[in-house]
Amino acid sequence: MRRDALLELGATEAAALIRRRQISSTEIVQAALERVDDLGELTGAWATVISEFALAEANRADADLWTRDFTPGRLHGVPFGVKDVIDTANVPTAAAFTPFRNRVPVEDAAVVAALKKAGAVLIGKTTTTQFAFADPSSARNPWARSRTAGGSSSGSAVAVATGQVPLALGTQTGGSTLRPAAFNGVIGFKPTLGLVSTVGLLPLSWTLDHVGVLTRNIEDVRTFIDVAAARPVKQSAAAIGPQIVPPRLGLVVPALEEACEEVRAHIRDLANAFMAGGAIVVEVDFGLPLGLILAAQRLIVQVEAATVHRRLLERHASDYLPLLRACAEVGQVVPAHSYVDALRLRRLAADRLEGQIARHQLDALLTPTVGSEAPGPETTGDPSLQNPFTLAGMPSISLPSGLSRNGLPLGVQFAARCGDDIQLLETARWCADHLEPIPAPAGISESPAGIIGRANHFR
Amino acid sequence: MRRDALLELGATEAAALIRRRQISSTEIVQAALERVDDLGELTGAWATVISEFALAEANRADADLWTRDFTPGRLHGVPFGVKDVIDTANVPTAAAFTPFRNRVPVEDAAVVAALKKAGAVLIGKTTTTQFAFADPSSARNPWARSRTAGGSSSGSAVAVATGQVPLALGTQTGGSTLRPAAFNGVIGFKPTLGLVSTVGLLPLSWTLDHVGVLTRNIEDVRTFIDVAAARPVKQSAAAIGPQIVPPRLGLVVPALEEACEEVRAHIRDLANAFMAGGAIVVEVDFGLPLGLILAAQRLIVQVEAATVHRRLLERHASDYLPLLRACAEVGQVVPAHSYVDALRLRRLAADRLEGQIARHQLDALLTPTVGSEAPGPETTGDPSLQNPFTLAGMPSISLPSGLSRNGLPLGVQFAARCGDDIQLLETARWCADHLEPIPAPAGISESPAGIIGRANHFR
Repeated sequence: MRRDALLELGATEAAALIRRRQISSTEIVQAALERVDDLGELTGAWATVISEFALAEANRADADLWTRDFTPGRLHGVPFGVKDVIDTANVPTAAAFTPFRNRVPVEDAAVVAALKKAGAVLIGKTTTTQFAFADPSSARNPWARSRTAGGSSSGSAVAVATGQVPLALGTQTGGSTLRPAAFNGVIGFKPTLGLVSTVGLLPLSWTLDHVGVLTRNIEDVRTFIDVAAARPVKQSAAAIGPQIVPPRLGLVVPALEEACEEVRAHIRDLANAFMAGGAIVVEVDFGLPLGLILAAQRLIVQVEAATVHRRLLERHASDYLPLLRACAEVGQVVPAHSYVDALRLRRLAADRLEGQIARHQLDALLTPTVGSEAPGPETTGDPSLQNPFTLAGMPSISLPSGLSRNGLPLGVQFAARCGDDIQLLETARWCADHLEPIPAPAGISESPAGIIGRANHFR
Repeated sequence: MRRDALLELGATEAAALIRRRQISSTEIVQAALERVDDLGELTGAWATVISEFALAEANRADADLWTRDFTPGRLHGVPFGVKDVIDTANVPTAAAFTPFRNRVPVEDAAVVAALKKAGAVLIGKTTTTQFAFADPSSARNPWARSRTAGGSSSGSAVAVATGQVPLALGTQTGGSTLRPAAFNGVIGFKPTLGLVSTVGLLPLSWTLDHVGVLTRNIEDVRTFIDVAAARPVKQSAAAIGPQIVPPRLGLVVPALEEACEEVRAHIRDLANAFMAGGAIVVEVDFGLPLGLILAAQRLIVQVEAATVHRRLLERHASDYLPLLRACAEVGQVVPAHSYVDALRLRRLAADRLEGQIARHQLDALLTPTVGSEAPGPETTGDPSLQNPFTLAGMPSISLPSGLSRNGLPLGVQFAARCGDDIQLLETARWCADHLEPIPAPAGISESPAGIIGRANHFR
């Protein structure tokens, strides 16, 4: 198989071909590393690449298939990337923080261990914003290098968008997986809070941090859940096959009001397309004023970041980027009762959001992922529309849903009740079937135009 | 059946007799109300008694049994009391706080609704310390009126100890159910955090508040769990019958060091008796220094009490008793990062405590419930030994285990892993069979001496 075709494969599909020995892990990992050589620097997607180690692992993965009684895992031999705030044994994990540049964890984070156990081959650590907060990273948006790649999981989104890996891990404390997914034209998914262990993440906000995943198709998200879930996942009624009943969706009107006119019209068009396909779309709200939800989210992150960074900040103040530093400093002077009030508000917000779903018997809530196309590189973009579902701990997914007039990706977000991760994927799959596929990025001259197969993009 | 015999019955046993129409709800409720008339004032156990309403309910409970297709609940017709910080529909719930004296909730707390649904008949609200904190209440210890009845669930413990009701609800945020149980010679049980809903409790500390129960036998605790649990309860391997395998117990040595010499010797004697009966007793610790556990507990309560009481305190400062007022005032100036540190310490403490159980494959940890007999009425006693398991959210139970040289009750505490509530009861049942029963209180001249049947006291 030619290199570009190998790199078009989804992770699940690639693993199936490796298992059947139609392709080898060595050739797909080799192809990925060549693509990283071509595009890594241009896209700024990587903090560390471990080529030799990855090739040795790929060789071993191929050899294992010839071992008697060997049962290959769900991701056997498939290359993947890991955001550089997630610990990887013997591979530096620095969180874009200079004092950590020589920090080499002894153990894999739980989620990395789970993916490796399923056979996946780590090829490197992807670029993150500093400690997964809001100061922009050095990753570049492959659709237009003058625009932000989003954040904080910018490198993972860019690497997946440009075919350097089929799957990469991110994290989400506010909107750090879904927002870069939308800006870079890939799928971003954040599971129910607690479904995937956060042990081994450098914490930003210990009660809000989630592991997220970036992929080019929904099937790979499903594989990720199966492999990484720390507890049994609720199967949905339709789990035996693809969902054929059109879903009931709740269009969150105040989310549209946050968006620019172009995005608002785009999401209305999508809702109409879903309805034309048989979906029910009802108009709902967040259950609480969005400003209140965002205030609670902000205060919790400030306080928890302050708790984590207080002592480091004393020693290394000048190594902190300004937004994170301000966040941690503000967090130090918040009185505890305000934090408790924010936690109580958080619970209320979760009840209200899930209440919307229950009251209208919805499969999912529907919003734009972000209120606009990717803005300039001075920001990672606006987390306001991703935040509510993170605060509530609900599973959420962003699908690439079209291109703006400027030719940049737009994203649509779906969120379901806590625990309904699988149901959410089925809803997303139905909706993806009713979306127009978007083409591949053409914003960088060395762009791997066409490598991201259309059909592949949404399933 | 004569009145005293009726009042000796456990709740489960009484319900069985009512179901079989061997006694009526009306006669047992009548007997309870007469006992309340005799002893209520002397013991200070009641904030409100609703005699007429209770008798009407009892009449209805008796009539229901003659209704075709009526299925009586597990506590059908049995009188019970509810601590006056737990909401009861149409019955004042004042938390010993003067500005709340006319506060009449519209709805029952979830746990009260569950007990009523099982057929139990509310006869009144039991005395509590102010908002379930540490300022002593007006309840008196029936073993010696010069000693504290403990707190904060003092009225519930006293009412059960003196046969005014077979079962009463308490709450526990630190040691508020198990400590008064120990001081008054009854059983106190606190379920796994979250197993019984706290909806409808006047909060003291929202993440630590538990509903507790006071009874005279373990069977009634089991019935309480069955009736009140908000989610399915894990059954233990031996759930089909009484546990016959002697348990593996972890004697927490630092807890003994907190106790006075008499209690220390008493618990060592118990451990020897359990071993003589075949139990394995290994020596363990709390997994962390007790001082650290208590500091985290104290800070969390201060902050959360401050959050709840901040606005009330502005308006009604002079109505607050001094300990609660100091607690809420200190809590207002705690920075949020200290609270987050306390929450993290809490999680660590829970991991370490459960780690002790896992490492030594224990059925339960074993400590004195309190380090001494009931002290004077100027205090509700020392919560240090009940606190760790509340902080960790683990189920814990106190059994009356003997009398001090002064003739006052002593208690032994068992705690198990979160979720192992039923297993804990079975361990407690085995241990109760190896305890000497204690006699009934003789400290008040009008004491209902002998009414608390010995056999009844521990099963």
